[in-house]
Amino acid sequence: MIIRPNQHWFLRLFDWHGSVLSKITFRLFLNILMSIVAIIIYQWYEQLGIHLTIAPFSLLGIAIAIFLGFRNSASYSRFVEARMLWGTLLIAERTLLRQLKNLLPEDKKNHEEIAKYLIAFSWSLKHQLRNTDPTADLYRILPREAFSEIIASPMPTNRVLLLLGDEIGKLRLAGKLSDVTYKMLDNKLDELAHVLGGCERIANTPVPFAYTLILQRTVYLFCSLLPFALVSDLHYMTPFVSVFISYTFLSWDSLAEELEDPFGTSANDLPLNAICNTIERNLMEMNNQKPLPALLKPDRYFNLI
Amino acid sequence: MIIRPNQHWFLRLFDWHGSVLSKITFRLFLNILMSIVAIIIYQWYEQLGIHLTIAPFSLLGIAIAIFLGFRNSASYSRFVEARMLWGTLLIAERTLLRQLKNLLPEDKKNHEEIAKYLIAFSWSLKHQLRNTDPTADLYRILPREAFSEIIASPMPTNRVLLLLGDEIGKLRLAGKLSDVTYKMLDNKLDELAHVLGGCERIANTPVPFAYTLILQRTVYLFCSLLPFALVSDLHYMTPFVSVFISYTFLSWDSLAEELEDPFGTSANDLPLNAICNTIERNLMEMNNQKPLPALLKPDRYFNLI
Amino acid sequence: MIIRPNQHWFLRLFDWHGSVLSKITFRLFLNILMSIVAIIIYQWYEQLGIHLTIAPFSLLGIAIAIFLGFRNSASYSRFVEARMLWGTLLIAERTLLRQLKNLLPEDKKNHEEIAKYLIAFSWSLKHQLRNTDPTADLYRILPREAFSEIIASPMPTNRVLLLLGDEIGKLRLAGKLSDVTYKMLDNKLDELAHVLGGCERIANTPVPFAYTLILQRTVYLFCSLLPFALVSDLHYMTPFVSVFISYTFLSWDSLAEELEDPFGTSANDLPLNAICNTIERNLMEMNNQKPLPALLKPDRYFNLI
Amino acid sequence: MIIRPNQHWFLRLFDWHGSVLSKITFRLFLNILMSIVAIIIYQWYEQLGIHLTIAPFSLLGIAIAIFLGFRNSASYSRFVEARMLWGTLLIAERTLLRQLKNLLPEDKKNHEEIAKYLIAFSWSLKHQLRNTDPTADLYRILPREAFSEIIASPMPTNRVLLLLGDEIGKLRLAGKLSDVTYKMLDNKLDELAHVLGGCERIANTPVPFAYTLILQRTVYLFCSLLPFALVSDLHYMTPFVSVFISYTFLSWDSLAEELEDPFGTSANDLPLNAICNTIERNLMEMNNQKPLPALLKPDRYFNLI
Amino acid sequence: MIIRPNQHWFLRLFDWHGSVLSKITFRLFLNILMSIVAIIIYQWYEQLGIHLTIAPFSLLGIAIAIFLGFRNSASYSRFVEARMLWGTLLIAERTLLRQLKNLLPEDKKNHEEIAKYLIAFSWSLKHQLRNTDPTADLYRILPREAFSEIIASPMPTNRVLLLLGDEIGKLRLAGKLSDVTYKMLDNKLDELAHVLGGCERIANTPVPFAYTLILQRTVYLFCSLLPFALVSDLHYMTPFVSVFISYTFLSWDSLAEELEDPFGTSANDLPLNAICNTIERNLMEMNNQKPLPALLKPDRYFNLI
Repeated sequence: MIIRPNQHWFLRLFDWHGSVLSKITFRLFLNILMSIVAIIIYQWYEQLGIHLTIAPFSLLGIAIAIFLGFRNSASYSRFVEARMLWGTLLIAERTLLRQLKNLLPEDKKNHEEIAKYLIAFSWSLKHQLRNTDPTADLYRILPREAFSEIIASPMPTNRVLLLLGDEIGKLRLAGKLSDVTYKMLDNKLDELAHVLGGCERIANTPVPFAYTLILQRTVYLFCSLLPFALVSDLHYMTPFVSVFISYTFLSWDSLAEELEDPFGTSANDLPLNAICNTIERNLMEMNNQKPLPALLKPDRYFNLI
Repeated sequence: MIIRPNQHWFLRLFDWHGSVLSKITFRLFLNILMSIVAIIIYQWYEQLGIHLTIAPFSLLGIAIAIFLGFRNSASYSRFVEARMLWGTLLIAERTLLRQLKNLLPEDKKNHEEIAKYLIAFSWSLKHQLRNTDPTADLYRILPREAFSEIIASPMPTNRVLLLLGDEIGKLRLAGKLSDVTYKMLDNKLDELAHVLGGCERIANTPVPFAYTLILQRTVYLFCSLLPFALVSDLHYMTPFVSVFISYTFLSWDSLAEELEDPFGTSANDLPLNAICNTIERNLMEMNNQKPLPALLKPDRYFNLI
Repeated sequence: MIIRPNQHWFLRLFDWHGSVLSKITFRLFLNILMSIVAIIIYQWYEQLGIHLTIAPFSLLGIAIAIFLGFRNSASYSRFVEARMLWGTLLIAERTLLRQLKNLLPEDKKNHEEIAKYLIAFSWSLKHQLRNTDPTADLYRILPREAFSEIIASPMPTNRVLLLLGDEIGKLRLAGKLSDVTYKMLDNKLDELAHVLGGCERIANTPVPFAYTLILQRTVYLFCSLLPFALVSDLHYMTPFVSVFISYTFLSWDSLAEELEDPFGTSANDLPLNAICNTIERNLMEMNNQKPLPALLKPDRYFNLI
Repeated sequence: MIIRPNQHWFLRLFDWHGSVLSKITFRLFLNILMSIVAIIIYQWYEQLGIHLTIAPFSLLGIAIAIFLGFRNSASYSRFVEARMLWGTLLIAERTLLRQLKNLLPEDKKNHEEIAKYLIAFSWSLKHQLRNTDPTADLYRILPREAFSEIIASPMPTNRVLLLLGDEIGKLRLAGKLSDVTYKMLDNKLDELAHVLGGCERIANTPVPFAYTLILQRTVYLFCSLLPFALVSDLHYMTPFVSVFISYTFLSWDSLAEELEDPFGTSANDLPLNAICNTIERNLMEMNNQKPLPALLKPDRYFNLI
Repeated sequence: MIIRPNQHWFLRLFDWHGSVLSKITFRLFLNILMSIVAIIIYQWYEQLGIHLTIAPFSLLGIAIAIFLGFRNSASYSRFVEARMLWGTLLIAERTLLRQLKNLLPEDKKNHEEIAKYLIAFSWSLKHQLRNTDPTADLYRILPREAFSEIIASPMPTNRVLLLLGDEIGKLRLAGKLSDVTYKMLDNKLDELAHVLGGCERIANTPVPFAYTLILQRTVYLFCSLLPFALVSDLHYMTPFVSVFISYTFLSWDSLAEELEDPFGTSANDLPLNAICNTIERNLMEMNNQKPLPALLKPDRYFNLI
């Protein structure tokens, strides 16, 4: 996730790290090559009475643009949903802690105990979605016994939730919470379960693979043939116009693929580390714990992981 | 559902099993044939003073592309909704089991009993949606008595839910659950009922048949006439451009039809077997039951059923 | 609602009952007539130095296609919402009966009594939406006294709900239901009220009439003028291309109008009879009542009303 | 809101009151004038070596059509949301009254008292949204004391809700409602508060003004220049084609603006009077009060206010 | 947020402050310059056998328009969601106060105390979203002790919610609220927490930066090259048509960027000051406090901040 400070619109045009430009350079280079080939062989195939005109490519290009619009909507709505789930995570955890503090204002030990599980839940989910090892983070946050049980489980994030529920269940069995107030807190656990399940769904079920495949095939073939259709009108201008049109189509296709999995670590993905850091800071601040962990800052390319 | 490992973009272009290519091969072959016919008879119908130009086909092609975009949105949103329902199924079943364990931490026998019904519910729903026989799976999972009652019913999945509700109702009648905590568990049964009803709705009510019909007619006719419109400009290039444009339109139409019923077993459908397997593994793990059933893996074409 | 068995794609192209073809035949015939007129007067108006070219019609046709896409989205989302409401009806009624059976497993008489009201509610709603007489169905299902009160009311479906609520309220007053368990059942009545109100809203508030009007005017005028724009390029081919383009536009416009009111009985409307039949079968099966009413089957045109 | 009886498609084309035609007549007339100017000066500016061609206008027209599609979606979704809010109003008020009758079947006086507040709420909301004086309607419906307090408040609709809440609160304080059953009724008041707040939001926050402005500028300028681009091809046909294209664009722009504020009294706005009338009839019928107020009928242009 | 009184459509066309015109003036001026350059060098590059035609620019322009439509949808839906969140804020705060007054009609001191926290919450959220200093507003509204604690916190808005929850929790501990009625009020705090989290999400997570970048690059380059493509057809008309097309594309791009962050203070952003003022007036009016703060009015450019 790139968060630019206010940048002049003119400077932006030459930004390298922000867009998907680095990914499609090779294909744009191929396109220039094709344009040069087209200029060279133009006179030769003209003699055969064959020529590609731009009219069928106009039709095809607009059709592909419509499909790219659809594909980008599908990918972007996955990105938005993923961001909403992580937003709900922050909201539900803050609310659960607030409710506990409002219901049992004196049990400060319980506040900190529950906060630990909540913080562990978000870090564990991050590691699960990015296929990284949660051991270090969980060890840092959790009590020893819970840590051992969780790290031994094949589904650690779900196990954090189970143990957190046990902690709250104990408060009910100890008579500190009535059934009604217990239900209030359990509702928040239910929201956490929805966040977990929702993120798993997005991570495990991509947009149907055929969409990716059909679009990439048509976009690549379209860009490769385009110089041959442009050359009879544009001559030496062919490479410039061809690479411009190709950039538009290739970058939209490439961005759609990048946004499809919003849990990665590339420039346009969600900054899960920063969100986990925000959650940890928020919950500790609510418990007046000090010092808060430092706020994560974007790197020198304005990128936040 | 095809889940590709990271594949180089160039190799992808020649992927056969991933896209709908196998379904439309015959129609693309027909299109090439039409192109050859167009090249042959071109000189003859030119003499009659008749010629098809590309301009009306441009207009028509763009209009069809817009309608294909609409049709794909409709089909894709059915696919997404179906996936969400199965996601909710996993979430609701995990949550119900967690709540039961948090509320009655000592009743291990009940945990396993309820888990059986939950697992049976998901397998039964899968068989109902795919019109396959649930007997073997239900026999494997359920206690004998419940199995007999469920298999005798004309609506077995709904009957699983009814019996599951009875089991939880007995806990209330036995005084283990208060009305308030009983209501918490019943809310999850309500979510399962929504999943069941939602899946039945998607399976029984296709996109209005006229959309399919109108689009297929216009797409097929458009592709068949296209070579005759292209031939005067493109001569010997006609088959290549024509089959390329046809591939774009036919594959989008074909994919929309495939996604319309997301519960099938073709390459772009939902992997219901894998989801049921995940649910079974999750619930058993929560109960610390061992060994877990093996994780379902994609076949050699990366296809997960 | 047409539910085709698997039909070969080639046979489908000649399907008459499935699409809106029967409705627009006359307008397509008019279009052919216009094309012939265009061919005949072509030479005459060419001499006046006037000719219609296809360029402005391309622009107009694409603009109209975009608006048709919007119009179809609006109509289709009404269709989808209507189907969802009827899906919710089935889910809510099954759930209410399940809850009653789980809460009061012994009161079999009450189960059947409540089921009657639920079944009556769905049939009554169907008759209200289609402006047909509910007397026969309500007489068949309901107890005499309730029947008389309901049939005398100007809002019979809402009255069914009121009486159903009274029945459940009596269980509370009789001490069989606590306030908490009563609230569970009342939530389901609330869902039924939302279904009733939602269906009334869709039935009473069409898409703003101006959308229909503006689109039909532009589509009809566009199709009528099209032959005159095509004739200079296509000569004797004009009728074929013109009727093909007109079919695309007219059928989309016609289908949008048909889907706008999804409660009718035409080929692309919702099969309310079949859904009511499904509800009745489901609820009776849950009560182990026999014999179940026969399953409604599609007619010989695969149409389900 | 215009609700046409079934009208023959041919007659519809000449309907004057249904569409926005009356609003754009002047601008269409201007367009014809421009076309005539274009025909007259055509020969003169041709000599200067300058001519406008249709190609750039095709590009621009399609771009504008895409933006008009976006703008109409935005306006229409406001219309749909407004209608849904009023639908929820009817549903929530019917449900609240049903719950009260089911919970306290004997307190007929309370039923009628609460129904008065509910009816007053809907009329008061209507007057607030249309900036009309609610005094007469509130005086007709409410008890004297409540009337005085409400009419004195600067936010009368919100005050109706507050007093209604007080009435229901008194039933709790009097021991007729437990906390649980009180909460059921309060949930419905919450829904009414959402309807009030949602309608205020739609009424106070238009679509960002720049959308309206940019589109109107481009649409008007486009329609004004169009004749000059068409004239070289179409000569004497220019006014006909130009006014046809302009009608399509101007009417869509005009309708989008009309739907943006769905609470007005023009032909395509919501019939708030009729909905309030329906609510009043429904609630009185549930209480068996007679005679019901007469059903509001559309005027002779089929318009329902 | 600009709220125009009814303005004649003709006058609107010359409105300067409403649209994004002030922001893109410089780029439009550049475009005119490019057009003049194109006219001057036209004869020279014609001799080289190179010319840009409008056909590839048509294709590109339509593709860009489709992407601009997508980009505007994404930005506008952020604007709509932000407005909905602030609408929910008003609704939830009014409802919470109404519930408190209905439940404890005599505790007028508590009503005013709670209202203070609610008003402070909305002002604090506004300052957080606009990065302004909340001290003055919070000092004006809150009791001293709460003020000190809140202003000392790094997350003041969240701290307001925590203290508000404590106040309501005290009512429960004092026996004035049962667990059930306490839960009603806590639900509203939960809604406030969702508003807070939702606004933070919108403010912190822009639309992926690559969308902005790709579109701006293609739009700017498209507009810069356009004069060279138009000049061969339009000669001296080039600047007029080129600047018109550029205005359409640049203003849509610029507006999308402006709406992306709806919490700013530019002409098309949300009037957060006015909404906070409305909330304060509403809550005080419900408590019959006088005098109400003055209603915020738009400035002389009809702008409401």
